[in-house]
Amino acid sequence: MPANIPDIVIGRLPVYLRALTRLAQEGHEVTSSHELGQRLGISSAQIRKDLSHFGGFGKQGTGYQIGYLVEQLRQVLKVDQEWEVALVGAGDLGSALAHYKGFGDRGFRIACVFDNSPQKVGQRLGDFTILSTDDIEKNIRERGIKIAMIAIPAEKAQEVADRLIGAGVRAILNYAPINLNVPENVRVQYIDPVVHMQRMTYYLT
Amino acid sequence: MPANIPDIVIGRLPVYLRALTRLAQEGHEVTSSHELGQRLGISSAQIRKDLSHFGGFGKQGTGYQIGYLVEQLRQVLKVDQEWEVALVGAGDLGSALAHYKGFGDRGFRIACVFDNSPQKVGQRLGDFTILSTDDIEKNIRERGIKIAMIAIPAEKAQEVADRLIGAGVRAILNYAPINLNVPENVRVQYIDPVVHMQRMTYYLT
Repeated sequence: MPANIPDIVIGRLPVYLRALTRLAQEGHEVTSSHELGQRLGISSAQIRKDLSHFGGFGKQGTGYQIGYLVEQLRQVLKVDQEWEVALVGAGDLGSALAHYKGFGDRGFRIACVFDNSPQKVGQRLGDFTILSTDDIEKNIRERGIKIAMIAIPAEKAQEVADRLIGAGVRAILNYAPINLNVPENVRVQYIDPVVHMQRMTYYLT
Repeated sequence: MPANIPDIVIGRLPVYLRALTRLAQEGHEVTSSHELGQRLGISSAQIRKDLSHFGGFGKQGTGYQIGYLVEQLRQVLKVDQEWEVALVGAGDLGSALAHYKGFGDRGFRIACVFDNSPQKVGQRLGDFTILSTDDIEKNIRERGIKIAMIAIPAEKAQEVADRLIGAGVRAILNYAPINLNVPENVRVQYIDPVVHMQRMTYYLT
């Protein structure tokens, strides 16, 4: 695996993978950086440069074999396996995530759902029985889970993150609208619809 | 308003605003680029440079008045007003968004909810009566709505986006796992939990 790839490049690879998977579903077998760029609103030069970090995956002038490129990108991103994911929070958002069908064929499977509400613990949520947040450490450690989604109010998010990390989690998708302080060996990605929308209103006239 | 601010700078302003609002809620009145940077995992130099695009908002050595900086950032991001937002999709995710309490005090209010299912149209969803997607144009135009959230399957997302844009929408928060082709005067932000997680698995060992 090549070292020192800029994180911004890594961040584009899942977007390429998603678009390529869709092209394959539509029956395409070959594509070009030009075609892919048009779909994504990214320049073809950018795409070629990004992929060149990993050897290029294509021959000059013949385009990319989509199936091959998909497999290579899945390997690079380590989603040629299925990662178990812990979900903390069984409210409206947590329930939507627990029911979401789009994880499985893209490298992830929710393995357990936690909530701190006595009314919810023990109840069914989709395929899951909701576990108590008291049991976070035990379950995360036993299963060796490395990835968690946090879908709880901001006030509790740091405490839950600390406990997840203490039990071995190294990647957190945080839906709580607050920044988390984590050790250097832990990654956090943030999803906050308001932050995304505020970034657009700046440009509205 | 200063021109030609890099979009990556604009993208950090909502994160600063969120952290500053929380500092204010915690009772702080003054902060520094150092303190803010520690909370956010961003260097203090980066924060000062970002804010300097807009005049700086602080005096050398005395830090930032949080209340004043919050108001200034809200003005810059144009969220010192309340934007009406159209939500398309009343499934699990759309329902979670319709019930979400965190929009109001940050500049946004869901104004109408659309779905294409005859079983859902006319039903209540939180404070809303679900409208038919057939009525997208009429409602968007009448209300002058500029912002929409798309929470429907990928297959229908481009068609819905085209219709929203035709009716006047200029900013789309797209939860459908597909890239949208939009005119240059329209902004799109994407939320796809799998893309965020795939960006982290690359780093997991």
